[in-house]
Amino acid sequence: MNAGDLSYILDTFFLLFAMTLIIFMVPGFAMLEAGIVRTKNVSAVLTVNTMIYAVASMAFLLIGYQLAFGTWENDSVSKWAAFLFQMAFVGKTVNIMSGGVSERTRIIPLMIFTVLMAAVIYPLVVNWTWGANMLEGTLLDISSMHDLAGSTVIHSTGAWALLAAIMIIGPRKGRYVGDQIRVIPASNIPLVTLGAMVLWIGWFGFNGGSVGSISSKESADAVALTIMNTNTAGLAGAIVAAVIVYIQYKKFDITMILNGALGGLVAITAGADLFDIYTPILIGLIGGALVVFAVPLFDRFRLDDPVGALSVHLVNGIWGTIAVGIFAEDVSFAAQVKGVVVVGVFAFVVSYIAIYAIDKIVRFRASDDEQMEGMDVSECGVESYPEFKRAF
Amino acid sequence: MNAGDLSYILDTFFLLFAMTLIIFMVPGFAMLEAGIVRTKNVSAVLTVNTMIYAVASMAFLLIGYQLAFGTWENDSVSKWAAFLFQMAFVGKTVNIMSGGVSERTRIIPLMIFTVLMAAVIYPLVVNWTWGANMLEGTLLDISSMHDLAGSTVIHSTGAWALLAAIMIIGPRKGRYVGDQIRVIPASNIPLVTLGAMVLWIGWFGFNGGSVGSISSKESADAVALTIMNTNTAGLAGAIVAAVIVYIQYKKFDITMILNGALGGLVAITAGADLFDIYTPILIGLIGGALVVFAVPLFDRFRLDDPVGALSVHLVNGIWGTIAVGIFAEDVSFAAQVKGVVVVGVFAFVVSYIAIYAIDKIVRFRASDDEQMEGMDVSECGVESYPEFKRAF
Amino acid sequence: MNAGDLSYILDTFFLLFAMTLIIFMVPGFAMLEAGIVRTKNVSAVLTVNTMIYAVASMAFLLIGYQLAFGTWENDSVSKWAAFLFQMAFVGKTVNIMSGGVSERTRIIPLMIFTVLMAAVIYPLVVNWTWGANMLEGTLLDISSMHDLAGSTVIHSTGAWALLAAIMIIGPRKGRYVGDQIRVIPASNIPLVTLGAMVLWIGWFGFNGGSVGSISSKESADAVALTIMNTNTAGLAGAIVAAVIVYIQYKKFDITMILNGALGGLVAITAGADLFDIYTPILIGLIGGALVVFAVPLFDRFRLDDPVGALSVHLVNGIWGTIAVGIFAEDVSFAAQVKGVVVVGVFAFVVSYIAIYAIDKIVRFRASDDEQMEGMDVSECGVESYPEFKRAF
Repeated sequence: MNAGDLSYILDTFFLLFAMTLIIFMVPGFAMLEAGIVRTKNVSAVLTVNTMIYAVASMAFLLIGYQLAFGTWENDSVSKWAAFLFQMAFVGKTVNIMSGGVSERTRIIPLMIFTVLMAAVIYPLVVNWTWGANMLEGTLLDISSMHDLAGSTVIHSTGAWALLAAIMIIGPRKGRYVGDQIRVIPASNIPLVTLGAMVLWIGWFGFNGGSVGSISSKESADAVALTIMNTNTAGLAGAIVAAVIVYIQYKKFDITMILNGALGGLVAITAGADLFDIYTPILIGLIGGALVVFAVPLFDRFRLDDPVGALSVHLVNGIWGTIAVGIFAEDVSFAAQVKGVVVVGVFAFVVSYIAIYAIDKIVRFRASDDEQMEGMDVSECGVESYPEFKRAF
Repeated sequence: MNAGDLSYILDTFFLLFAMTLIIFMVPGFAMLEAGIVRTKNVSAVLTVNTMIYAVASMAFLLIGYQLAFGTWENDSVSKWAAFLFQMAFVGKTVNIMSGGVSERTRIIPLMIFTVLMAAVIYPLVVNWTWGANMLEGTLLDISSMHDLAGSTVIHSTGAWALLAAIMIIGPRKGRYVGDQIRVIPASNIPLVTLGAMVLWIGWFGFNGGSVGSISSKESADAVALTIMNTNTAGLAGAIVAAVIVYIQYKKFDITMILNGALGGLVAITAGADLFDIYTPILIGLIGGALVVFAVPLFDRFRLDDPVGALSVHLVNGIWGTIAVGIFAEDVSFAAQVKGVVVVGVFAFVVSYIAIYAIDKIVRFRASDDEQMEGMDVSECGVESYPEFKRAF
Repeated sequence: MNAGDLSYILDTFFLLFAMTLIIFMVPGFAMLEAGIVRTKNVSAVLTVNTMIYAVASMAFLLIGYQLAFGTWENDSVSKWAAFLFQMAFVGKTVNIMSGGVSERTRIIPLMIFTVLMAAVIYPLVVNWTWGANMLEGTLLDISSMHDLAGSTVIHSTGAWALLAAIMIIGPRKGRYVGDQIRVIPASNIPLVTLGAMVLWIGWFGFNGGSVGSISSKESADAVALTIMNTNTAGLAGAIVAAVIVYIQYKKFDITMILNGALGGLVAITAGADLFDIYTPILIGLIGGALVVFAVPLFDRFRLDDPVGALSVHLVNGIWGTIAVGIFAEDVSFAAQVKGVVVVGVFAFVVSYIAIYAIDKIVRFRASDDEQMEGMDVSECGVESYPEFKRAF
C-alpha cells in the first residue's frame, strides 16, 4: 500500500463517515419541524422532508452534481464518496426553505421547486464557489470568498429562496390579524429538541467533512479544530439565547435556546477551520443573539416563518460569512461581502421567479379551508396522532 | 506498522463504524413499529424490540456465531469486530418477524422463537451462504448465490418466518370482519418517519460494511459505490411509491412512501456492490412499486401484517436477489433462484414447525380480551402515553 | 507519511468517531428523561439537558480541561480531538445528577452547580485518575485504580452529587404521603426507549474510545473487545431485569428492562477492556439485578429519584469498579476500593456543600405551587404538548 493509496483510503473512509453524520440531519430537520408545527400539519411536514431528500438527491445525482463540478472524476478520493458527501448537502437548501413556509404550502409545487433547486440553482452556486467556477475571469468571480461549509453557499441560498417563498405564498391564515400577531405554540417539544440536537451532531460531519481530507497530520488537526470550533459556536449560541430570553421574560424558552444554538452553528460554518478557541465563542454569541432579536423583527415585517429559518439561516448565513472577513487574517473582507451579495441576489431573484412561475401553474398556497382542516388531511390523508384527543 | 497490520487496523475500525450504524437500526425498528401500532400496544412493541436485541444477540454470542462460521478466528480483522458486525445483523431477522405479528402476539413465546432463530435457523442460513458452508458438495449448495448483505439471507429469512407466524397466529381481532378490511391507522407518524429514516442510515452500514474491507483502493471504491447504490435505490423506492399513491388517491401517504423507500433498500441489498448509477434506480423503482401493490394483496389473502413487512422484506428480498441474476453480468440467474428457493423452503418450513410447536406449549396469540385491552396492559403493565386522553 | 504521522491520523479520526457517538448521548439522556417525567415537566427537563451540555462544555473548555490534564499539548493525537473526546464526557456527570432531581428543581441553581461540576469537581477527579495526578506521592493517590471509562470517575461522581442533591432538595411534592409511595408513571414510553437505546450506542464510543488508540493491531483488538464486552453487559443487564420483573409481577416492565441494560453498561464501564466473553455477562447480570432491587430500596429511604439514576449510576458505578478488583488478575482489589471511597467522599461532600450553599442563595427547590403547575410553565413558559388533552 503506497502513500497515495493510503491517503485515498483514509479520505474515502472519512468522507463516508462525515456523509453519514450529515444524512442524520434528514431526520434532524424532520423531527425539528414536526415538533414545531401544529399537530394537524405534522404528517405533511414529514412527507415534505422525506420527499425533499428523495427528490433533491435524485435530481442532484442525475443533473446537479455534473453541473456543479463539471466532472465525476476524482484522484484523491473515491468518486462515489465525493458524490455522496456533496449529495448529503443538497437537500438542506430546500429543507431550510420548506420549513419556513410550512403549514400553508402544497406539496406538488414544492417538489417542482425542489427539482429546480437541486438540479440548477444550488449547483450553480456551488459551481462558482467550490466547483468548476464558470465565472472565472469575470467580474462576478466569487471563488475567493472563504466559505468552508456553506454559511452562504447552503444556508443563505436556502434562506433567500425561503424569503422569496414567504413573500409569494404569504403568512399562515390567522397568523396576523390587524395589528395582532397570534402566537402559535410548538406542538411537540421533545421532537423539536431531538431534531435540533441531531442537527448539531450532523454539523460535525457538515463542517468537519468540508475540510475534505484527514490523511495528513495537518489535515487531521484541521478536521478536529473545525469540529471543536463548530461545537463551541453552538454552545455559545445556546448560552447567549438563554441569557437574553431569561432577561426578557424570566423564563427559559427552549425553542429559542435551540434556535440560538443553530444560529451559532450556521454562523461558524463559513470559517470553522480558521480560528482557535475564542473567536468561535464570539461568533456564536453574536449568532445566537441575532436569532433572538431577528425572530420578532421578521414578524414585524409580516414575514411568517414558523421555524425561525430566516433568523437562523439567512441572518447568520450572512453574519458568518462576513465574520470571516472581519476576524480571519488572510481573508479579504470585500471578497466575503461580494460573495454574500452575488449569491444573495442570484438565489433570491431566481427563486422568486421560479416560485412565482410555479405558483401561476400549480397553486403553492393551500386554501383557507385546507389550512383550517390541516395539511395532513388535505395533502396526505394521514393524521399524525389520530388517537390523541385534541385540546383545541 | 507493516501493510498487513495497517489493513487489519483499518478494516477493524471500518467494521466497528459499520456495526454502529447497523445497531442504530435497533431504535430504528423500534420507533417505526411503535409509531405504526395503536397506542394500547406501544409499550409491548418496544419491549419486544428491546428484548429481541438482547436475547438474539446473546444467543448468537453463545451459540449461533460458532454454528454459522465454524470458528471465531480471523486473520484479516479483529475477531471481536468481525463478531460484532455479524451480531448486529441477527436481531433483524426476528425484528422483521415480530413487527408483522404485532398487536396480538405474546412476548414469552416470541422470545423462545427468538432464541431458535438466533441460535439455529439464521446461523444455518448464514453457514450455507456467507459462512462455513456445510452444504458444500451437496445438491443444496447455494454458496454461489450473490447476496451481498442479505436480501435473501436476512430479509427473506425473517419474512418467511413472519409468513409462518401470521398463518399460525392469525389476524388481529377485528381486522377482517366478513368481507370488510378495517383500516387501523398508525398512531404516531413522527415515530414512523424517524424510525424509517434511521433504518435508511443504518443500511449504509449494513450494505457498505458487507463489502468487508476498506483497506485497498478497490475496496474503498467498492464500499463507497455500495453505499451510493443503497441510497439511490431508497430514493427511487420513495419517489415511485409517492407517485403511485398520488395517482391512486390524490394524496401523499407518508407511511406508504417510507415503505416504498424501505422496499427499494431491501431490493438493492443483494447486489449493491455490483452496479453503477442507473441499475439501482431501476431496482429501487420496481422495489417501491412492488410494496405499494403488495400491501393490499396480502390483505386480500387475510394475511394481517400491521407494518407491511411481507411487502417490504419478503417480496423485495426475493425481487432483490433475482434482480442480481437479471442485471449482473457475472451472476448466474439459476444460482439466485436456487438460493431464494432453498432458503425460502428451509426458513418457512422450520419456522412453521417451530412456531406451531411453541404455540402448542405457550400460546402465541393474545386472547380477544387481551387484544381489546391492549398488549401494554396485559403483557407489560405499562401504558405508553398514560397522560394523553384517547380519542377512541 | 511516516508511522508516527499515520498513528496520529488514525487515532485522531478514531477519537472523533468515538466523540460523535458520545455526543449522541446528549439527545439520549434528553429523550430518556423527557419520556420519564410527567408531561407538565417535559420542556423543563429538555431545557436542562440542553443547557447542561452548553454550560458544562463551555466551562470545561475555558477552565476544567486545563485543570484536569495540566496541558493542552498532545503528541500522539490532535490536541483538539483529545479535548473533544474529554469534553464529550463532562456533561454526563451533571446529566446523571439533574435527571434524578427532575420535576422539582429550578434551572438557575442547577446551572450554577453545572459550572462548579464541569470547571472544578469533575476535573479534579479526572486529574487524580486519568490526568495530571496532583495527588501523586500522597496517601490519597488513587491513580492505580483501573477505571477504563469512568464507572467511578463519571458515573459515581455524578451520582454522589445526585445523592447530595436529593437529600437537600427533597422528594417531589406528593411522592411520599405518610407510609404511601405514590407511583408516578412515565409519560412517554417511546421516548424512554429511544433515549435508552441511543445511550447504549453512545456507550460504544464512551468505552471503546477510552482505549485511546486504534493504531496498532493490539489496540484495534482492544477497542473491538471493549465494545463487544460493553454490549454484552448491556444485553445481560436487560435480560436479567426482564426475568426478575417477570417473576415478580408476571409483566415485562419496559422501563425496568431498559434500566437493567443501563445498569449493566455502567457496571462494565470500569473494566470493559479486561475480560473476554463470559465475565462481562456475569458483571452485567449482577448489574441489571442490582438495579431492580435497588430502585425500591432507595424509595424505602425516601430518596426520590424519578429516573432511577442512583440505582443505575451509583450502585453500578461502585459495583463495576469493585468487579474489576474481583475478576481482573492484575488489578488490586484494594486500589479499586480506595478509588471508590476517595472519589465518593470527595464528590459527595463537595457536592453537598456546593448544593447547600447555592440553595441558600438561589432556592433549588421549586415551590409546591410551581410543582403542581409543572416546571414547564414556571421555568420555561413553554408547554411540551400544548395540543394534547390531558387525561389527568
